Amino acid sequence: MENFLSRLGAYASSPIREETGLVELLEKEGKQVIRLNSGDPPKYFKTPNYILHAYANALKQAKTFYADSQGVPELRAAISKHYKQKYNLAIEPERIVVTQGVSEALYFLNAALVDPKDAAIIERPYYPSYVSFLNVLGGVSVFADSVEANQWQIDVELLEKKLKERRKAKYLLFSTPSNPTGAVRDKQTLEELVELANEHDLLIVSDEIYDELVFDKAKFTSIAQVAKGMPYVILNGASKTFDATGFRIGYMLLPNTDKKSDALLKRVVDLARMRISANTPAQYAIASTINTKEHAAYVRKLSREIQKRVMFAARAVNKSGYMHAVEPNGAFYVFPKLDTQLGMKDDKEFSEMLLKEKYVWVTRGSGFGAPGHIRIVALAKQSVLAEAIDRIASFCKEHSR
Amino acid sequence: MENFLSRLGAYASSPIREETGLVELLEKEGKQVIRLNSGDPPKYFKTPNYILHAYANALKQAKTFYADSQGVPELRAAISKHYKQKYNLAIEPERIVVTQGVSEALYFLNAALVDPKDAAIIERPYYPSYVSFLNVLGGVSVFADSVEANQWQIDVELLEKKLKERRKAKYLLFSTPSNPTGAVRDKQTLEELVELANEHDLLIVSDEIYDELVFDKAKFTSIAQVAKGMPYVILNGASKTFDATGFRIGYMLLPNTDKKSDALLKRVVDLARMRISANTPAQYAIASTINTKEHAAYVRKLSREIQKRVMFAARAVNKSGYMHAVEPNGAFYVFPKLDTQLGMKDDKEFSEMLLKEKYVWVTRGSGFGAPGHIRIVALAKQSVLAEAIDRIASFCKEHSR
Repeated sequence: MENFLSRLGAYASSPIREETGLVELLEKEGKQVIRLNSGDPPKYFKTPNYILHAYANALKQAKTFYADSQGVPELRAAISKHYKQKYNLAIEPERIVVTQGVSEALYFLNAALVDPKDAAIIERPYYPSYVSFLNVLGGVSVFADSVEANQWQIDVELLEKKLKERRKAKYLLFSTPSNPTGAVRDKQTLEELVELANEHDLLIVSDEIYDELVFDKAKFTSIAQVAKGMPYVILNGASKTFDATGFRIGYMLLPNTDKKSDALLKRVVDLARMRISANTPAQYAIASTINTKEHAAYVRKLSREIQKRVMFAARAVNKSGYMHAVEPNGAFYVFPKLDTQLGMKDDKEFSEMLLKEKYVWVTRGSGFGAPGHIRIVALAKQSVLAEAIDRIASFCKEHSR
Repeated sequence: MENFLSRLGAYASSPIREETGLVELLEKEGKQVIRLNSGDPPKYFKTPNYILHAYANALKQAKTFYADSQGVPELRAAISKHYKQKYNLAIEPERIVVTQGVSEALYFLNAALVDPKDAAIIERPYYPSYVSFLNVLGGVSVFADSVEANQWQIDVELLEKKLKERRKAKYLLFSTPSNPTGAVRDKQTLEELVELANEHDLLIVSDEIYDELVFDKAKFTSIAQVAKGMPYVILNGASKTFDATGFRIGYMLLPNTDKKSDALLKRVVDLARMRISANTPAQYAIASTINTKEHAAYVRKLSREIQKRVMFAARAVNKSGYMHAVEPNGAFYVFPKLDTQLGMKDDKEFSEMLLKEKYVWVTRGSGFGAPGHIRIVALAKQSVLAEAIDRIASFCKEHSR
């Protein structure tokens, strides 16, 4: 057995799903677990008919063969058009790569750029797979901290200091709106990051999968609107806005035609060809609907409904007396700090005990690089969210010391 | 630009698709390219209605959420039942991992087991991604040669010698029926390989994606039937037998409950959770049809029709006077050796010139570790295969020296 498994593979982890076995056990015993761990809208909202019809139609037309490894031309053209309308971004379909969810884009990005011991800058709190895909390839994460007291905006000055003290990093990765904090990066921060990235020769990677789930008071800026002259990558996909996570369609945009972007694009296409293609009928379904009025109207409606639920959850959390959350500006998470000293070893124990005692499934903050927090997916109905947050508060009360 | 891309990522390659750009160019110019490069049955046979209906049905039932990372329980139970019926193999659904095609299973396998500089034994000629997924992670391939003069059976004695001379390897990977040679591993060879693997503490990985496309005269043996006591992995999937490559559903079986299999399974599930899930509605579609009589009848019919085409192509190749192929026993490839001395630098130039002069797209043998050969996908109608093989022969004639 010794040395049977790889050393690097041990970095594979997914805090969001690590209690799967325990939850299945509890449910077998007849316990009703409130699952607030996975950001999966179709579990709460019915996927709209227009996309289901488009998908069924693609099947009727026997779109069942391997797709172009980069994505079917129809989808890449549709995404290009979508970005033109959304951000006035002129991006050639040839500079788009369709991926099996944003996860696969993270694999491509790291495999294309990172050798063992190479560093990459990742915003913290982070989406867990940002770190695990990097680490599994032997890459080393350097964190750009977001400051809770400053609405979870990235501390650019602190990052600048860190960059001065160390050798080169391969890229700077963040999400906006952020998973898990819901922070929307303001334009000034993005401009400062672009400047810093220019200085330190860093590729900017902006995960914008939640870009159409931004709340009223916030103003979303895409990296495309500020990084005009330099190489950058946008990650996005159909999972959230189509309410269709299970289609597994993401995409990677490399809009600029500089030498670095060209080299990265070529490398990513080579990696994409190794796995042949993403699901074909799903690609045609999205291609034929992403630019329709019906879809635009649905996204607006979904976004409004999600905003209501997130705001409700954030308020309930802040009224609970045992935790406190910065009000999110987008996405569908609430990321409170636990206010009490609890009698537990760590927050892994916290989330397991919460499950066993209160049947509520949330994700430990340490999974996002922020121990002492929990991530609540705020997609459930208000009554369910209220009940869950009540139970978490009781749990905190019972275990505070 | 220096050191921008990773060193290891340069191993990303896909000889089967490397001429994509050139072919698109030719087709834009109005040339009719005969594409015999990609093993993609739905381009030649209409995907059967029962699977399309089952897929549409899954959509109607809004199976659009993230699936269980290991695969939806319904599909894992159905695969378990399927293997019980096929090989009398008792495999628990918990020991099955649904993947995004066999390609993703290759990534999981390598990420779970291989650190940079670790070795793995790969049968040669090989399916190209066996090597590239290993190399991209820094792994080193050691080849187990199959002997053309012996119906492309693996030379176990030679492999034994190689194993004596070197440090440990992580696994031994082969396909049966083989892509690209169409060889079906005979029972004796498999037993010898199992013995060797036992001696050298090697995990056996058998890619059996073509196990239901085996021709009349051949007898297929699954590794499950000979490797009873030891850890092994079977790779398979729905792409070929459902005539639905674009669904991207593969699976990985770890039937035995030894310590190594357990550790590998746990690791693979960790890796699977990082990318959340495979396409959800496709999983339900396959779950509800894989054990039906209708599907069994379709696979028999498909296999018979493919056999006819492959045998026709093999005969045409062998009559051409410019190449010679071992008659395949399964899968849908013909892998002839070119008999003439051609006036070209290498076989990459051969396949490019063949495209430019004769508009026939095949894959160079060096992509499979066997220079001097070409791989022909023998799925097209006989008239198309005849025309293509004619053109290849003319090309050889014109360039022989």
